[in-house]
Formats: sequence, C-alpha cells, structure tokens
Amino acid sequence: MIPRYTPPAFADLWSSATKYTTWLEVELAACEAMERAERVPAGTADRLRDKNIQLDADRIDEIEKTVKHDVIAFLTHVEELAGDDARWLHFGMTSSDVLDTSFAVLLTRASDLIAEKLDELIEALTERAKEHAGTPMIGRSHGIHAEPTTFGTALAGHLAEMKRGRQRLRVARDEIAVGKIAGAVGTYAHLSPGIEAEALGALGLQAETVATQVVARDRHAAFFSTLGVIAAGIERLATNVRHWQRTEVAEAEESFTKGQKGSSAMPHKRNPIASENLCGVARIVRSAVIPALENVALWHERDISHSSVERMIAPDATTMTAYGLQRATRLVSGLVVYPENLMRNLEMTGGRCFSEGLLLALVQSGKPRQEAYVVVQRAAMKAFHGEGSFHDLLAADPEVAAAMTTEELERCFDIEHAVRHCGHIVQRAIDAP
Amino acid sequence: MIPRYTPPAFADLWSSATKYTTWLEVELAACEAMERAERVPAGTADRLRDKNIQLDADRIDEIEKTVKHDVIAFLTHVEELAGDDARWLHFGMTSSDVLDTSFAVLLTRASDLIAEKLDELIEALTERAKEHAGTPMIGRSHGIHAEPTTFGTALAGHLAEMKRGRQRLRVARDEIAVGKIAGAVGTYAHLSPGIEAEALGALGLQAETVATQVVARDRHAAFFSTLGVIAAGIERLATNVRHWQRTEVAEAEESFTKGQKGSSAMPHKRNPIASENLCGVARIVRSAVIPALENVALWHERDISHSSVERMIAPDATTMTAYGLQRATRLVSGLVVYPENLMRNLEMTGGRCFSEGLLLALVQSGKPRQEAYVVVQRAAMKAFHGEGSFHDLLAADPEVAAAMTTEELERCFDIEHAVRHCGHIVQRAIDAP
Amino acid sequence: MIPRYTPPAFADLWSSATKYTTWLEVELAACEAMERAERVPAGTADRLRDKNIQLDADRIDEIEKTVKHDVIAFLTHVEELAGDDARWLHFGMTSSDVLDTSFAVLLTRASDLIAEKLDELIEALTERAKEHAGTPMIGRSHGIHAEPTTFGTALAGHLAEMKRGRQRLRVARDEIAVGKIAGAVGTYAHLSPGIEAEALGALGLQAETVATQVVARDRHAAFFSTLGVIAAGIERLATNVRHWQRTEVAEAEESFTKGQKGSSAMPHKRNPIASENLCGVARIVRSAVIPALENVALWHERDISHSSVERMIAPDATTMTAYGLQRATRLVSGLVVYPENLMRNLEMTGGRCFSEGLLLALVQSGKPRQEAYVVVQRAAMKAFHGEGSFHDLLAADPEVAAAMTTEELERCFDIEHAVRHCGHIVQRAIDAP
Amino acid sequence: MIPRYTPPAFADLWSSATKYTTWLEVELAACEAMERAERVPAGTADRLRDKNIQLDADRIDEIEKTVKHDVIAFLTHVEELAGDDARWLHFGMTSSDVLDTSFAVLLTRASDLIAEKLDELIEALTERAKEHAGTPMIGRSHGIHAEPTTFGTALAGHLAEMKRGRQRLRVARDEIAVGKIAGAVGTYAHLSPGIEAEALGALGLQAETVATQVVARDRHAAFFSTLGVIAAGIERLATNVRHWQRTEVAEAEESFTKGQKGSSAMPHKRNPIASENLCGVARIVRSAVIPALENVALWHERDISHSSVERMIAPDATTMTAYGLQRATRLVSGLVVYPENLMRNLEMTGGRCFSEGLLLALVQSGKPRQEAYVVVQRAAMKAFHGEGSFHDLLAADPEVAAAMTTEELERCFDIEHAVRHCGHIVQRAIDAP
Repeated sequence: MIPRYTPPAFADLWSSATKYTTWLEVELAACEAMERAERVPAGTADRLRDKNIQLDADRIDEIEKTVKHDVIAFLTHVEELAGDDARWLHFGMTSSDVLDTSFAVLLTRASDLIAEKLDELIEALTERAKEHAGTPMIGRSHGIHAEPTTFGTALAGHLAEMKRGRQRLRVARDEIAVGKIAGAVGTYAHLSPGIEAEALGALGLQAETVATQVVARDRHAAFFSTLGVIAAGIERLATNVRHWQRTEVAEAEESFTKGQKGSSAMPHKRNPIASENLCGVARIVRSAVIPALENVALWHERDISHSSVERMIAPDATTMTAYGLQRATRLVSGLVVYPENLMRNLEMTGGRCFSEGLLLALVQSGKPRQEAYVVVQRAAMKAFHGEGSFHDLLAADPEVAAAMTTEELERCFDIEHAVRHCGHIVQRAIDAP
Repeated sequence: MIPRYTPPAFADLWSSATKYTTWLEVELAACEAMERAERVPAGTADRLRDKNIQLDADRIDEIEKTVKHDVIAFLTHVEELAGDDARWLHFGMTSSDVLDTSFAVLLTRASDLIAEKLDELIEALTERAKEHAGTPMIGRSHGIHAEPTTFGTALAGHLAEMKRGRQRLRVARDEIAVGKIAGAVGTYAHLSPGIEAEALGALGLQAETVATQVVARDRHAAFFSTLGVIAAGIERLATNVRHWQRTEVAEAEESFTKGQKGSSAMPHKRNPIASENLCGVARIVRSAVIPALENVALWHERDISHSSVERMIAPDATTMTAYGLQRATRLVSGLVVYPENLMRNLEMTGGRCFSEGLLLALVQSGKPRQEAYVVVQRAAMKAFHGEGSFHDLLAADPEVAAAMTTEELERCFDIEHAVRHCGHIVQRAIDAP
Repeated sequence: MIPRYTPPAFADLWSSATKYTTWLEVELAACEAMERAERVPAGTADRLRDKNIQLDADRIDEIEKTVKHDVIAFLTHVEELAGDDARWLHFGMTSSDVLDTSFAVLLTRASDLIAEKLDELIEALTERAKEHAGTPMIGRSHGIHAEPTTFGTALAGHLAEMKRGRQRLRVARDEIAVGKIAGAVGTYAHLSPGIEAEALGALGLQAETVATQVVARDRHAAFFSTLGVIAAGIERLATNVRHWQRTEVAEAEESFTKGQKGSSAMPHKRNPIASENLCGVARIVRSAVIPALENVALWHERDISHSSVERMIAPDATTMTAYGLQRATRLVSGLVVYPENLMRNLEMTGGRCFSEGLLLALVQSGKPRQEAYVVVQRAAMKAFHGEGSFHDLLAADPEVAAAMTTEELERCFDIEHAVRHCGHIVQRAIDAP
Repeated sequence: MIPRYTPPAFADLWSSATKYTTWLEVELAACEAMERAERVPAGTADRLRDKNIQLDADRIDEIEKTVKHDVIAFLTHVEELAGDDARWLHFGMTSSDVLDTSFAVLLTRASDLIAEKLDELIEALTERAKEHAGTPMIGRSHGIHAEPTTFGTALAGHLAEMKRGRQRLRVARDEIAVGKIAGAVGTYAHLSPGIEAEALGALGLQAETVATQVVARDRHAAFFSTLGVIAAGIERLATNVRHWQRTEVAEAEESFTKGQKGSSAMPHKRNPIASENLCGVARIVRSAVIPALENVALWHERDISHSSVERMIAPDATTMTAYGLQRATRLVSGLVVYPENLMRNLEMTGGRCFSEGLLLALVQSGKPRQEAYVVVQRAAMKAFHGEGSFHDLLAADPEVAAAMTTEELERCFDIEHAVRHCGHIVQRAIDAP
C-alpha cells in the first residue's frame, strides 16, 4: 500500500486503528456468546461496551515491545482502559481466534469494496459496449487485420469477462467469510461449537469446518487467486487500449485532461499511461498468488509463517485490485473513440479482411477448399505487394468469375453483413449474470 | 509429462492420437449443425462418419512441415483420406473453432479424471479420520506442543480441505467446459449462434458469451489456479506426514513395502519419500498458475502466445495434480499410525500442554488474567529447565492451592476432557458437502 | 519437453540412456579416485571400462519397481552386467553422490548448448544491427511516437541485453558445475575430500564447499533465474517484432516461407507467429524460477522434494531456453525490414516528433521552460486535431518567430541530426563483451 | 514496506524526501556536465547549489495533481524555489533520465545496505560454526536419522550459502549501478555520450550501453532474482531452526527474552516465531521476482508499466531482504544450542546411524554389496521393531562375526571417526571468499 495507489476506504480499512477496533468487536462478540453459555458473568460485554473504549494503537505497540505478542499487548491495554471486566475477554480463546476472525471481517469487507468497484466497471463497460455495438472496426488476430467486428463487441468481451470475475469473487468472498473461536488447536478445549457459531454469526461469518489454530489457508489462496484473475482481465483491457491508442492505429485514446502533460521532454505527447499503469497493477496483484499458495502448507496445527505474508499481500493485493478497477472504470468511461479512424483502418487493406468469405463462396461454388485457398491467397499476396487492390484483382480473376456473379462477389465485401451478429453478441454480454 | 508421473489415462488423453480424433469429432459436430442450418449438404457428416477415418498423426506432422499450420495440415490429411465430402468440413470456421473447442473437450475430460482421483482421496481421508477420530495426539503450533487433539481431527482437517477443493473444481470445470464455433474474430461472419449452440451442445459444452478468435483465457487461469490450490492442499498433507515420520516423532509413517530400499548407502533408512515427492509435485502444479494468468491478456481478438504455454501446462498441471492425488490416496490409505508413540509424545512435557486450562481455572477463581499467566508460565519454565514436573510444581504452588481444589486441578490434566469435541469436529468434516 | 519444442541435442541430453551413461561415468571416476587412495583394488575401473557395459534402461526401470530406488536399481543392473568388480562401485558413496554429480554434468552440458545458441543470436543481432545502424525509424514511448532513432539502434538494444545474458550465464554455469562425493550427509564418513576432488576434477567439476547429502540448491535457483532473465530478453525482442509487424505499422515482419499458410480461414494473413510463440516460451521458462527458489530450503541434510521439480524443470527450462534462442535467431536473421514504411511512419505526425528540440531552442532563446512547453504543446495539439501541420503552425507562431530564425527552426526538424549518435550507440553494443 | 519490518535506514532511503533530493542531485550532476560541454551557462549548478534548496514534497504532490506528471511537478517546484537558473535544469533531458538515474542511485544504496546486513549474518554464522565445529549431531535426510555430522557443519553450510549470496549480490549490484542521460529515446538527440558519462561518473554510475527511454530492465530482473535467492537461503536456515526447536527434537532454540510471551492462551509455549517469520519473509521477497521478469519486455523504446511495479517491489523486496538478514543474524547469534540433546538424539536409534559403515565393512570383507545390504537392513528393521539394539543384533549375527573382528565392529560405531572431516569442512566455509 502506497498512498499513490490507495483509495481512502482502503487506507482506513487496513489501518492499525481499524484492526484494533475489529479485535475488540470480535472479543465482545465472543464474550456475549460466552455469557449466554454461562461461561462469563452476564452483562460483561454490555458493561464493556458502555465504557466506549478508545484504543490507543501507540500504547499497544509500546506494550508489544516487552511482551513480543500483539494480542497479549492488546489485551493488556484493554485491561488498562476497562478494568476488571476485561479479564473475561479472550476467555478460553487463543490469539488466533481473535486474529483470524478479525482478518475474516476485514478481508470480507475489502472484498465487498472490490465488488463495488467491479460493479462500477461493469456498468461503464455496459454503457460503452451499447454505445458502440454497431461501430465497425477491424478485428485483429496476431496484431494483423483479420475480419470486421465492432468496437462494442470488443468492449462486450471485457464486460463478459468482468462479470465472470464478479461471479468468482462472490464465491471467493464466501470462502473467506469464515472465522474460528475454537481455541489453541481448534478443539474447543475450553470453548464449544455453540459459542463459536453464535459469536461468528453476530459478525456475519461462518465457522471453519475443521480449524487448526487458524482458519485453513486454502481459502485465502483461492481468494487471492481470484484477485489475480480479475487483475489479468484488467490487464487485457488495458493492453487493448494501449494498442488502440498507438500513433499508427489511433482508434481510441484515454481522455487527456486540461493541464495534463504527457512528457517532460516532448510537448506533443499523449500517452496511454493509465492503461500502462494498469498492466503494472496486474503484475502486482498477480504476485500475491504464489505466496498465498505457499501459505497453505502450515505445519501441524499451524505455524506463523503465513502472517508476515498476509500483512503485506492482504492490504496490497486488495488495494491494488480496487485501485485497478477504479482506474479502469475511469479509463472506460472517458475513452475517446474515433469512428473515422476505425473505418480508415478497416479499409486500409483494400478488402483483404473479407478473404474468408471469398474462400467460402468459392468452396460453395464447388471448388475444393485447398484450391480455393490458393486463389484467394494469391490475390491477397499480390495486393500486399502493391500489385493492385485485393477487390480488383479478384474481380479480374477468371477462376473467380467462373465461380460467382459480380453481385455475389460484392456481397462478400459488405461490412454490414460481416457484423450482422454483433448486436446479438453485445446483448448476450449485457444479459449475462 | 514424464512417464514416471503420468497415469495411463493421462498419457492417452494428451496423446496426438486423441487430439486429432477430438478435432475430427468437433468438425463433425459442427458439420451436422451446419447441415441442419442448410449450410452444408445433408448427409455429409454421416457419410464421413461411415468412412471410419483412421487419422495418421505422423502424416499430419509431415504436412505441417510445409504449411506450418496444424489445423490446415489436419484438414489436408482428412481430405486425403475422405475425399470430396471433406471440403464441407471446417466450413466458415477458423482453426481456433476446432482447437479451442477441442481443448475444452480434453481439459474437461482431464478435470473429470482429476475429480475421480479427488473423490478417492476424500474417501481415504474419510476412512482414516473416522478410524482415528478418538486417537489422542498432541496438537502443535510452531512445531511446539500446544494442547491435545486427535489424529482423526488432523486428518479431518485435510478431508475438509479436499472437499473444498472438490467444490472449487466443479465450478472451475464448468468454466472451461466452453467452446466456440464463431469464426475468425468471434462474429459468426459465416456462421450463426444457432449452429454454434447445436454443435457445442452435442459435445457437452456451452458457447462462449463473447468469443474473440478464441475462448477467453480468464477461464483457464481460474482453472489452473484451482489446481494450484488443490496441490497446495496435497502439500499440506504431505508436509504433516513428513513431520509425523521424523525419527524423533515417529507418530505415523508411510507404508514400506517388502523389497523396498530406503537408501543406497544406509540400510536402516525408512524415508517419507512419497510425501516429499508430493511437496515437489505441488511446486510443479503451482508453477502453472502464473503463466496461465499471463496468458489472459491476449492482444486484440487474440494472439497465439498462449498456445505454447498451454501445450506444456495443460498436460503437465492436470497430470501432476492427478498423480499427486493418486499418490496421496495411497499415502493416506497405507499410513501406519503408532498410537503408542502418539501417547508417548503427548505425555513427554509432563502435562505442560494443559497450561491453558490451568490459566483459565485460575482466572475463574478470581485471579486477573495476567497474574494467572505468570503463575502458570513460571511452573512451565521451571519444568522446561528440569526443575520438576509441571503438574507437581503447580500442585505445590500455594497460589494454585489457594485457587482450586486438588480435584479441580486434576480435571485440568484430563486428556479425554480436552478432546471431547473432536468426534463432533470429525463428523462435521464427514458431513461437509 | 515436447517434441515440437525440443532440439535434437536436448532430446539426447535428457534421455534415460544419457542419464544412466552419465551415472556410470561418475561411478567410474569415483572408483578411479578411490583406487589411487587405495580404498578399492587397483585396476577395477579399467577392468569395468574394458567390459564396455551397455546399460539397458528398461531393465533398470524393472528393477526399480521392486526396490523403489533408482540408484540401487542401476547398481543392481551394473552388477548383473559386470559381475564381481561392480561391488567396488559406489563404495562409501550415497545415491546423491552419483545423482547430483551426474546432474551437474548434464546441466552444465545443457548450459553449454544454450551458450552456443546464445552466441548465434548475438551474431545475428550484430549483423542486423550493423546493417540498419543508420536506417531511420520513429522511436516510441508508450506506443506513441516520440523522437527519431534508427532500426539498428533498436536491435543494438537487444544485442546488448543478450550479451549481458551471456555474461550472466557464464557465472551461473560455473555455479552449477559443482558435484559432491561426500557421502550420506556430506561428511566424507567413508570417503575423503581428496578422493572427491580427484573424481570431480576428472569430470570437469568443482567440489561443493559444504555439501549436505546434496549440492546446495541455491546454485540451481540462481541458474534457473538466469534462464528466466534470458527468456525475458527474448520476450522483449519478440514483443517488438509483433509491434513492428502490425498491419498499421508494417515496419518489419517475420519471413514467410513458400507454402506457409497464415490462417485456415483467412488466406490473406501473414502473422508474427514465431514472435508470439517466443512470448509464450518466455512464460514457460520464467515459470521454472519460483519452483527452483522453493527447492532451496530442503530440510536438514536434505529431503527429496526438489527431485520431482528438477525432473520437470531441468529438461523443460533448458530446452525451452535453447529453443527460444534458436527460433529468435532465425527470426532476427530472416526479419524483413521495410525502410520505406519506417520512413512513412516517421513522417506521419508531420514533425511532431521534433517537439523537444523546439522546446529546447525556445528555452535557449531565453523563454522559461514551462512557457516554452505551452507554445509547443499548443501547436502539437492543434496539429493532432487536424488544424494544420505542426511545422507550419510553429512557423506561423509569432512567439516562435520572435525566438528563432527560419534556419534555426528548420534545423530542429532534421532527422540526420536527430540520429547522429546512433552509429556510436550501435558500435558500443557491438564492442560490449 | 510496513513499519513492523522496516529498518530505519530503509524508511529513510525510500522516503519521498530522499527521492526528490536524489532527483535534484541528478539534475545538478547533469547540469555541471552540460556546463563543461558549454550547453548551459557556466556557474549555473554552483549558483543553484548555493541556494540550498529545501524541497517540499507536499507542494510537488499538489502540482502533480494538475500536470499529472511527477518530474514536471518537481521541476516546476524547483523553479518556484530557485528562480531563473532552474530553467537550465533538465536541459535536453527526458524525465526518465532523472528517474532512472535516480532509481539507480537509490537501488544501489539499498544494495549496499543489504550487503552490510549480509556481512553481519556471515560474521554471526562464522562465529557459531567455529564454536560448534566439533559438536556432534545426527545428520538427517528425509527428516530421518542418517549419519552423524556436527552442528557446526550444518551452520557452515548456511555460511557457505550466504557467501555465495554475497558474491551474487556484488555482481547484481554492479548491474544496476547504471544510469542514463540520453534523452527521450536514448539517442542523445539533444545531449551527448560525453555529457552522460561525466554526469553519471559523478554519481558513481556507469552509462547504459544502449538505453531506450530507460535503462534496460533485465538488469533489475537479475537484481531482484538475486534477492530471491538470498531470501531462499534465509528460508533454509530458518526452516532448520524450526526443526531443531521442535519439542521432540529440542536441539537448539531461538533466544527467549525476559517478559516475552509465547502464546496468549498457553503460558508454557516457547515458539520459533522469528524463524517462522523469516520463512514468510522469503515468500515475500521471492514474490518480487516474477513481476521483475515481467517488467523486462517493455514496448518499443519503453512503456511505463514497470513503474507501478517498481514503486512497490523496490522498497518492499530490498527492505524485506534487509529485515530478513538482520533478523537472521540475531537468530544465529542468540541461538541456544543444547549439546546434551544433540547427543541424546544421536544415540536414540541405538547406532542405526552407523549402518553404512557396517555395510562397507562387510563389502570389504568380501561380501557382495547387495548381500551385505540385506544383513544390515535386517538388523536395522528388527531394531526398529523393538527386537533388540542394532549394535547387539549385529554383534550376535554369525554372518557379521564371520566377516569382522569385534574390534572392527566397534570401530564402525565410533562417532569421532564419523565426523573426523567436519573440522576441515567448516574451515573450508570460513576460508571461502
């Protein structure tokens, strides 16, 4: 997390203050559940709540320097502030009951914030895909002109991908909305499944099926992998914008605000820096996946090797995903599309992009496929070497003339026909869940 | 894929022969759909099927050397074998219609084979978890004795994890059970959504919402990530076995077959080599995740950079996952458990593993938590330094005597009480979906 | 390793036959060293060599099925073939003495083969960089035209990078040219440092400083990382070719052989498939780095978790690196460069690529930098929006006229001046070690 | 970078203040070089230095909000503070001339700080390896007792590894001690190689052989890979400590300070948390390697996708490496070794760890290796199953009696003999460069 890339909600979510407040929430939820189970004197949690405890993060850090244990430092500080009742907090619990349950609360909240950003990106993509559903564009494979498509279809592809990301995120979110109040090795030695269920329920969480000292880390690995896949989708979108904005292509470009400078050296520059930045963001989010997977194989009932990893990747990967989605939304909403350039590029190969239709028309006229291929490729290669327009070369080819009428030939070069299904495709993305 | 780690079903699945056969299946399914749409003369597919075409992989490879394009080589070969009707194959289609749809068929099949292996591991873990639900064992955090648990509880943790893996795999499998017959840039320029739906339906696949030249690669990234998480679960299981088998621990060990030799140098060795191997397997499977994520951001309507990656990771990662699951199943089924060593280790700290119960009993008697902590830690540290048994030191401590009766003290040291919820926990894992 | 990507030398290097032959070499080298140390009867190695043992890989695999230990299976087979003298082989050695030393021999050989391919790529880049040292080209940052450079300068950048790769490979190669003949835990319990030094020396290897049962795996991690960096350099080169070949850019393209077909659907296509393939190759090679790093932290004097990883990544990563280098060499040698298109693109922005020179000229005339920036950006943006040519707009600007003569203005638009240092830069790459 | 893991020198190094100060250093160094080349009025740099400019990071950030370009914001601020002379700064330069050169200064400094920490760890390992060069310990492969070694030998292995890390770091450091003052696309369009060489020389840097807009990123990829390998070495060390400290092993443990608490629940706990933390640290450092490799393939003369990645991984990976080394040093220095437990464990298998010597003695007496293996394995397995001590079973075996005298038998069980070369091995690590 560096300020440059941290939306305020994430700065707040991953602050020490929020962390300690959440610990206290968890302790109080557990305390109430224990009261109902008559493990703890009735009214303890209410009395503690009434004290409206204001935790001092610095003081906790100070205590930690001596005891070298963060939860013990926290509890000591709560005792300082809240007096005798505080000794009932954490009763029968182990640090990880608080830490992991608290982590579930925070990570779930981060996931919900990401989901909001994802919704916004989906909204923006929907708008722009609709707007350009019928805007013709050359489709490209290998960076080489292939057949026509529409700009809206390209955006709809990103839309459908982001919707898949949303579905995956919902599943992954539920997987990490899991806490545990099950004691040192998950056996409820001084607790009970009932207490746990009640406390977690109050926090909006499920109980781990079989906890060790901690919640199982495959859940988090699946969650961070899901962020990695979403980030890869952002990267694909951003990569396409970078291509569209190339000087030679100039089909679309990032909005360029008044006062913005593209280069300290070259005043003429308008660069797709948001898109490039998003490619970097994807690399960062992706880099959390492997450590998250390495965190799974904790020893026995747990070791603490995952902790330092999570202190870094949980804030970083969630924040960068949200930042990426937010920036991608602005990118999409503000994207300046140049339909005249789209058309210019579409036409620049003199109709070579219709070669497949011609091939098929020849086949349908009775020519074996590989022979037809030779006829069309020959014209395409001549055109490529400047020996005439692809259309005219074919029109003049006796093999072609023998196979189809002029009208049939012209129909092969009709853009509208080529993209006739694109509206349907875009709608399919809009209708997808 | 190396023979050492390749189950026969995977050798077959990822062979050239199966690949080309699947291509033909796809072409024929598309051909039939096109017949119904009256794009292709009725009866073509049936006539081709009747020819019972025997593809020759070597011949295809030979043709590819000239045309440098695998699908064209394949089609040329089919024409060689099947004659005139073959020219209706691939009509209006692009190579990727065949390749990606075929890839979906194969990868889905791989996923189903993995699911079978996963079921077997789940079965084995269920059996052994039940068997040892009540076998006491010391729970460990940080490799250090913590509180008692049972061996079955430890296994139930792995069981619950593998069941989560199975749930994830089902979702991931459906995500890649998606093909496309939508032409060069996914616009159905010479096809239609209806033809696609029919052809894919016959193959058990869904249509891509918005295809480019290919099916979107976020689907595969999610799939390979899921394999990575499953493999991490195998690694956790294997790591625990390695710990249990350590000479000093000796709580459980891999079965050692007659004739097996542990070391070329040291005849006395019995090594957990299956478990160690599984840790390596997890690294290999995990290593497919990042390239799969890097494959997502293809340029425009597709580039072919993903192809070489998938030629390697699709066979490797699926095969290694299946191999890992299969070997893990044998490991679990054959695991030799030594209950007497489990008990010996449990008792080796003279009851220090019950320190938390003592702490809580002191708190419940009215002592502030931090004071109680000092009393118990003091005895534990003395015992650690050989100044007496933990139990006896506490029994002799006047602060303890002031706080509880001898009976209350003894209850704190009761193993059965400590693990009373373990049966419930194991059952929870067995009942999990 | 799949046949498609495996140069013959690598198929041979990583075959079972070569592996077992290398084991025998190592055993015989050790045997000779032990003869000189009078541990083994004089003449044993010579007698064994005279038998010209022809190992049967299948037989070894068969024996391994019973003993579940590859080196024991190998030794058993050698005894079968060579009789009594064979019992002196492996004397005092542990399997890893053979395996790891043998692995060093093979991996070093793989490194040498890679080095040859790297030399060839360096040679090809040198040729083409020289050829195009003075061919003007627009330099691009962010995919947007920046300032002129030359095509040879771009190639020289790749040349310099590959030379750095060569330097790194030399270091990394020496790091893995290390074996061990030090026994079960590296203590020479039944051996001696002298025997080891002599045996390894005969094999062209150094001794591990402090062996455990194996050679330390940080060496291999550094080696595979080095391959990852080389592959990333190939990716950069390939990515640039893909950009150059885009339909709209068309500055250079991969050679297209007679008979080659670009697409099964579109006869007009010429795709940069080699370059795209190389980007995938880089992902594969890179994917070996993390498992190699995870292999370092073996337990105590070694566990075998690294072994399955190395069985996969050692052949795969070395082969794919070599394949990538070889294919990149062909790519570079055969690259078709279109100087007229290079010039066309250079000129397409009407001189906006000279904006920096104009900015500096204005500054030198006395204008504050930020004011000068405004003047130039204003003209660039007008030109961008089609309100005239950049050059003419500036010529007509009174602020410019006030700052410089017409001649001074024209000098700012001189391509030759802009690229005057490019020859020097290219030479610097050629001269680099 | 989070405070918990950030040594003060790194907090300072990667602060905004240091960044901007370094930018100014670079600008002034370039300015001086340009004065000598008579591009800039003599005395400019001196006059600017005399102004003792105090940069205000907040003000720069504020300006950046408008111009959306960090270097332009910085230059604008310098102009605000320093007046007219400032317009000569950045003359003919592009932002990356400042940014990348400055990055080289900072990253080199980070590398030097890491090298200091590495020296300290090497020192600590040297001390402890010497101290325990002769302390017997059981060597283990697969976590299973193998043959005797010494504790110092184990430490010497880590020592040798860290020394290799130091060698690699030196090379990697030199690779990133490279800047560029070569303009927008590296062509010196408004600069010259001479100016660059002089400015960089003043900053202790070399010039990039062939710069694009930036220094080539393979350099940084190699650097971060090197940190990954060092971190993997820390992980190996930490993993071994975790094993040594296990309750059942108890051969060594992390120092436990007065007042420290091992667990909030269990007062008896002493956990190897530093070592576990270091394993997590290694995962974090390792996670920088792939993004660094992905950063290499920038488009054309550069895109900015690497920038966000480096803003995160450069501070994080260098800081975590330094933190890890520092913590590892304290770990090693404070490690409490229990020679009596080392001996207890060594003896716990009743001499089975000497099985190889017995095997060899039988072979030397004339028995074929595989027969001898059977004799020794038989005794080992009986002893494993509690049917007597390994030593006694062998002493009573007629096949053994036939092969060697009692004295010869006893020599096989001599620990001192087994570890006779360990002093030499430790010395080799100490003598290594």
